[in-house]
Amino acid sequence: MTREPHDGTKRSEILAAATRRFGRDGYEHTKWADVAADVGVGPTALYHYFESKQHCLYVIMEEAIGDFQRRFSAITSQTPDPLEALEAVLYDCFDLTEQDILRNRVLVSEQGLLAVHRSSSREEEARRAARARARQLEFAWASFLAGAMRAGSVPENDARLLSRALLGLYNSVWQWYRPDGLHGLPAVADFFYGRTLAMIGVAPDAAKRTRMVA
Amino acid sequence: MTREPHDGTKRSEILAAATRRFGRDGYEHTKWADVAADVGVGPTALYHYFESKQHCLYVIMEEAIGDFQRRFSAITSQTPDPLEALEAVLYDCFDLTEQDILRNRVLVSEQGLLAVHRSSSREEEARRAARARARQLEFAWASFLAGAMRAGSVPENDARLLSRALLGLYNSVWQWYRPDGLHGLPAVADFFYGRTLAMIGVAPDAAKRTRMVA
Repeated sequence: MTREPHDGTKRSEILAAATRRFGRDGYEHTKWADVAADVGVGPTALYHYFESKQHCLYVIMEEAIGDFQRRFSAITSQTPDPLEALEAVLYDCFDLTEQDILRNRVLVSEQGLLAVHRSSSREEEARRAARARARQLEFAWASFLAGAMRAGSVPENDARLLSRALLGLYNSVWQWYRPDGLHGLPAVADFFYGRTLAMIGVAPDAAKRTRMVA
Repeated sequence: MTREPHDGTKRSEILAAATRRFGRDGYEHTKWADVAADVGVGPTALYHYFESKQHCLYVIMEEAIGDFQRRFSAITSQTPDPLEALEAVLYDCFDLTEQDILRNRVLVSEQGLLAVHRSSSREEEARRAARARARQLEFAWASFLAGAMRAGSVPENDARLLSRALLGLYNSVWQWYRPDGLHGLPAVADFFYGRTLAMIGVAPDAAKRTRMVA
């Protein structure tokens, strides 16, 4: 299906407005009609893009996870050294706009809905797409960690459980992080970076030290 | 307010039935009337205990977090050595019945709803109680970790961020763990125990080694 350029823009505007509302006011409290009003489209036009608030939520989740996956692939494919790649990915995932942070909050707050089958076929399709993305991201992390273990850069462990632990730790940040909170994003990123490497069993700046030795 | 013994039993039965349905079928998919049918009470009697499905969810969450808090306090108050206490608590939180596991799943899947104000005063009261419990548990962990840092048992760090990381890592298990899954509960507990200690900066069995040295 080809979309008119205008179509794509309006769709992006709806997704952005919905992310802001879901992230700020909560998904449950957001009225779908308010999202339509934010971007100035009527219910019929809105339906052209999304069948329902839930359909839109699944698309937001799928795009959020998809973006993580693309950034992860771009970094790991360009960085041959596993430790350098690991450190780069861990910092990159805190290089976020305010809109990205809201989107992460939506993803984490509503992830319970990913497990629930939908009777509407458009909703169910979007739900399955988001779940598939989540599995792909977890698989990409597990494959990367398994490779780093084989290369001797990371201590041997269950790569699949470790990738789940790492993603669980990262996701948990967006449950409590608020831009106006006690801890700024750079401090949270530093903390997360150090604790994730410790959890994996790697000393911070191990890649830098390896380069110095080499 | 004093409750008749029968009252307490029926209330517990409703909570148990709701936990099973929410955990198995998802909160959103569960019909409140089905919970009533499970325990054989009519809508009027049900309303005596819980105003709504959401009210019941908040009470389940409050009890789940309260149980964690009581177990945590019991262990840490009886175990003077911080490392022994830490290791005991990390194993204890995987000593769970199938019902406990379902309850953890509900707690984690629906925690986004804890952030959303309710217009009903009974619902809002239950929501605030659950949130207060979550803050108490986090505070108990942070106080414990800060004490362990002062005692030199655990490397210095931000105790509050560390308690959030630890709870975030633990909670993430219940998003994917299923009793019939690839990894059994003892294997998951062992993995979690090792990775949490590594994240905190403590070698596994450090308490045992300290005892051997002493």
